[in-house]
Amino acid sequence: MPEPTPGARPTLEAVAARAGVSRATASRVVNGGAGVRRPLVEKVSRAVEELGYVPNHAARTLVTRRNGAIAVIIAEPEFRVFSDPFFEQQVRGISRELTAHDAQLVLLWVEGSGDYDRIARYLGGGHVDGALAFSLHNDDGLPAVIARAKVPTVFGGRPGWPGAGAGQQVPYVDCDNRGGAREAVRHLVSLGRTRIAHIAGPRDQTSALDRIDGYRDALLDAATGGGPGLIAQGDFTVDSGARAMAELLERAPDLDAVFAANDLMASGALRVLRERGRRVPQDVAVVGFDDMTPLAESCDPPLTTVRQDIEGMGRLMVRLLMRVLGDGTGTGADENADEPGAGAPGSVITPTRLVRRASA
Amino acid sequence: MPEPTPGARPTLEAVAARAGVSRATASRVVNGGAGVRRPLVEKVSRAVEELGYVPNHAARTLVTRRNGAIAVIIAEPEFRVFSDPFFEQQVRGISRELTAHDAQLVLLWVEGSGDYDRIARYLGGGHVDGALAFSLHNDDGLPAVIARAKVPTVFGGRPGWPGAGAGQQVPYVDCDNRGGAREAVRHLVSLGRTRIAHIAGPRDQTSALDRIDGYRDALLDAATGGGPGLIAQGDFTVDSGARAMAELLERAPDLDAVFAANDLMASGALRVLRERGRRVPQDVAVVGFDDMTPLAESCDPPLTTVRQDIEGMGRLMVRLLMRVLGDGTGTGADENADEPGAGAPGSVITPTRLVRRASA
Repeated sequence: MPEPTPGARPTLEAVAARAGVSRATASRVVNGGAGVRRPLVEKVSRAVEELGYVPNHAARTLVTRRNGAIAVIIAEPEFRVFSDPFFEQQVRGISRELTAHDAQLVLLWVEGSGDYDRIARYLGGGHVDGALAFSLHNDDGLPAVIARAKVPTVFGGRPGWPGAGAGQQVPYVDCDNRGGAREAVRHLVSLGRTRIAHIAGPRDQTSALDRIDGYRDALLDAATGGGPGLIAQGDFTVDSGARAMAELLERAPDLDAVFAANDLMASGALRVLRERGRRVPQDVAVVGFDDMTPLAESCDPPLTTVRQDIEGMGRLMVRLLMRVLGDGTGTGADENADEPGAGAPGSVITPTRLVRRASA
Repeated sequence: MPEPTPGARPTLEAVAARAGVSRATASRVVNGGAGVRRPLVEKVSRAVEELGYVPNHAARTLVTRRNGAIAVIIAEPEFRVFSDPFFEQQVRGISRELTAHDAQLVLLWVEGSGDYDRIARYLGGGHVDGALAFSLHNDDGLPAVIARAKVPTVFGGRPGWPGAGAGQQVPYVDCDNRGGAREAVRHLVSLGRTRIAHIAGPRDQTSALDRIDGYRDALLDAATGGGPGLIAQGDFTVDSGARAMAELLERAPDLDAVFAANDLMASGALRVLRERGRRVPQDVAVVGFDDMTPLAESCDPPLTTVRQDIEGMGRLMVRLLMRVLGDGTGTGADENADEPGAGAPGSVITPTRLVRRASA
């Protein structure tokens, strides 16, 4: 068993080796010993004493100077946070990257504007070193709350609230919503579809607005003439997609394609098309947006959709925040930030990609 | 427009009334003014000045002396936090009750034991005034982490880790798992079923162990003779319920009833029974546990199950914590704490109730 180098701090590995236990067991004992049998606890404790091991939290690569915690704020009520897989995937990417930076993720959400005061107090209380905020709406009071708290923040999604972009530029990560939507609708045009409808997301979110613009771009490009388009309103939920599809079939029984602004709404649309006896893709071709796992693949038929790397965007948000916080290890965002697609200084626009399956 | 009482602090309502805007608009302006049209911002700002309104956060009924934040720690990895509706319902109850106490909920979860050090630092850093922890496993290192951090904590689920219950009693909220399971199996016996199997939850959680005990209680009571029972192992997920059901049908093709330790596993079992052509309840009666909304009702056939008030238990956890923290407003838990079913001092055992639907 190797003796520790003189002068070097003994490591947990060295403790585990001397005690003849796994690193996990040694760690558990050092952290209180719960669930470890007494003889092993005694062995590890002896090794700790003999080596003079001190768990030195401060010696770690801490993300922050002060708290080691980052707030993740989802500007949606709890029921949406837990029911829309988009949030899970975004949080998963954030969680993994924060763990890699040894920072504690604390998740908050916003039930309504009545929560702003409390969130402002929390953020202003100095308990977190930074924040990641996403799914903001254009009339959200949250950006003002965050600005007042003076907590360095990276946003998910292009800011659309009044004042954002003008002067007070904020770092954000988004995908190429407009380009992705354009590609989706061009694909439908290339299939020979001429009556292409759109199920839009909520008009107070830039992702939804940018996808409407992409839909219109492609219609204008196409020989089909463009025009105002055929748009029904959804809110990014399955049920709203079903309602919008029913409405579109009323308004335009001859439609032959639908581009839905996310996969959840596309799955609701597929349900209604099935109920009405419309074959997909023969009668109506359907394209979604997100490439949500496993939803898109398990749709009937499997959904053609615009893929955005949701988990990767979560990771990029963390890397960007680390850069804002002056942490030298956040290099990932640098690679993309100066690409042609980049938005505001320090922001990142990630590419999208059409994934073809059976529905279009 | 009423003038403010002399000497009284002007309220936000008074500001809104003087400015001739809604309280929501006044609040938005006071919080930074995002999304409010300039003329309204000016009106509100004038009213603020005229009335001498000062947003005084400290004047509120704060749950805590220091931070106004409570950590909610789910001892499960992120994918389970977001996929098992049990957690959403528990968190919903907690969230509503914390909001009522004007405390900020910060959600943490545990991807693995590698997270303990970081969580220990966070909890020990004085950023929260208390914690609610649930879904702990018996070999969890988390109780030790929490104990070291000296953060007042209420647990969800009867503690089963070594040392819990002996000496260091911890407050917790749980339902009557054993009694509920007993009632479920007695119901199956009352239907004339004689080959009753059990799909158990993970053996390192007291809820699962207590439900196994309740299953055995009822078999012993019944004229069917008891014996070791017919138990297959699951882990509270849908897929594990399906696998356990398949295994049970192999081992005991003549079984005529199944009690699953939660609704998710029951729904997996129903899927397998359907695939194998077994009619429910004619051939095999099925009972779950939880009465998960909307899952239990939307099962095919709708699921007979043992209802526990998951959201209510979340609320009770908060009230109990408020009592531990010395907040006078937490009265809800008192009502139940001295009932015969109560566990450790200050702990609460809530009743369960069989909900009969079509599956048994």
